[in-house]
Amino acid sequence: MRTLFHMPLDPASRLIRIVLAEKGLPAQAIEKRPWDDEDGALASVNPALTIPVLMDEPPTGGELAICPTTVIIEYLEDAYPNESLMPSTSAARAETRRVTQWFMDKFDVEVTGNTVRERINRRLMRRGQPDYERLKIGADCLVWHLDYCAFLLEQRTWFAGERYTVADIAAAAQFSCLDYLDLVPWEKFPGVKEWYARMKSRPAMRPVLRDRLDGIPPPSHYDDPDF
Amino acid sequence: MRTLFHMPLDPASRLIRIVLAEKGLPAQAIEKRPWDDEDGALASVNPALTIPVLMDEPPTGGELAICPTTVIIEYLEDAYPNESLMPSTSAARAETRRVTQWFMDKFDVEVTGNTVRERINRRLMRRGQPDYERLKIGADCLVWHLDYCAFLLEQRTWFAGERYTVADIAAAAQFSCLDYLDLVPWEKFPGVKEWYARMKSRPAMRPVLRDRLDGIPPPSHYDDPDF
Repeated sequence: MRTLFHMPLDPASRLIRIVLAEKGLPAQAIEKRPWDDEDGALASVNPALTIPVLMDEPPTGGELAICPTTVIIEYLEDAYPNESLMPSTSAARAETRRVTQWFMDKFDVEVTGNTVRERINRRLMRRGQPDYERLKIGADCLVWHLDYCAFLLEQRTWFAGERYTVADIAAAAQFSCLDYLDLVPWEKFPGVKEWYARMKSRPAMRPVLRDRLDGIPPPSHYDDPDF
Repeated sequence: MRTLFHMPLDPASRLIRIVLAEKGLPAQAIEKRPWDDEDGALASVNPALTIPVLMDEPPTGGELAICPTTVIIEYLEDAYPNESLMPSTSAARAETRRVTQWFMDKFDVEVTGNTVRERINRRLMRRGQPDYERLKIGADCLVWHLDYCAFLLEQRTWFAGERYTVADIAAAAQFSCLDYLDLVPWEKFPGVKEWYARMKSRPAMRPVLRDRLDGIPPPSHYDDPDF
């Protein structure tokens, strides 16, 4: 069966889970912390020990290990073109890929790395208290990047243009992790909040909005589209 | 006219220059140091101030600024599918993208960042002597990663399989920068050397093999396919 090695509060894993759901591709989700691979299950399919990894059983037969995230996105679009998450012109596809990459690289490193991973992964690794300097940098970067998000959404219905694309999924994957820890100042960014309400109402978002971490409950608005 | 903002010893820029040459797409190459953009020419097309940036004039009209590198690669394959640098099955395309990404991310950061950029960019920025600790780390990583390259090329004719692809170009873009500074222990890795000799004999490689930096001549074997 199609299998995804993932972590619940990892934006890259969420991105792929949402893409799979949008495309109607069922997958067994196996939680895997890359730093805790004693059974070697992750190393055997991805020696680089990163998640997510998609184990696919394509219609042509066999089993394929696909990673890292960008490659999984392109592969799913390529192998399962139905319910396409890319626009139809090469210029619009370039913009979709640019915004997707911006969320996966710049936003992820500067905001999510300094906040969500600093708090959650440290706790999971039992590596003591978070570094408050990093949490502060992450919160500052979040406000700068929300400004850019608001700027894009003033000009467009969706993050890469007039069509819902994988760029919106990349954005929602990040925001949903931040929102689980109640870190997003939604009220200051009504355009971004309105976009995220639309995202939360999509059935494909339901599985990630159902995630719960032991001992860390999300805020009450977390899975409510009318927040 | 199609324009590429680039730097001569920047692997990502070289990757795009070689792809353009393989596809027979002429482009005016404008050298641009991201840290020295007083005229604002780079900021006006890419506020993120990274290179390369491709300014394309697609057949459909208008002018497009395309970046970052992964997006340029996908765009060129998408908009100009002739002389395709991708294999024909989605599984083989996934492997091509995985190897390409490995050279652009892991190899680039660990090897080229610690060696070529540490030496060349510091000099260009007049920021003093290179950090010898970093040069040493880069040289060590190069040997580990050459082992992985040799392992791949024992099983395959080209880096992503039996076909020449953009993964070979991503690899050659890195190795050609390292080789300009004579950093590659070719004799210890005959399989990789044999692959690089094949790469150097391709006409699309000629422009990057003609690059010369003021005051830093390359070794005599740099542009010789029979090295």
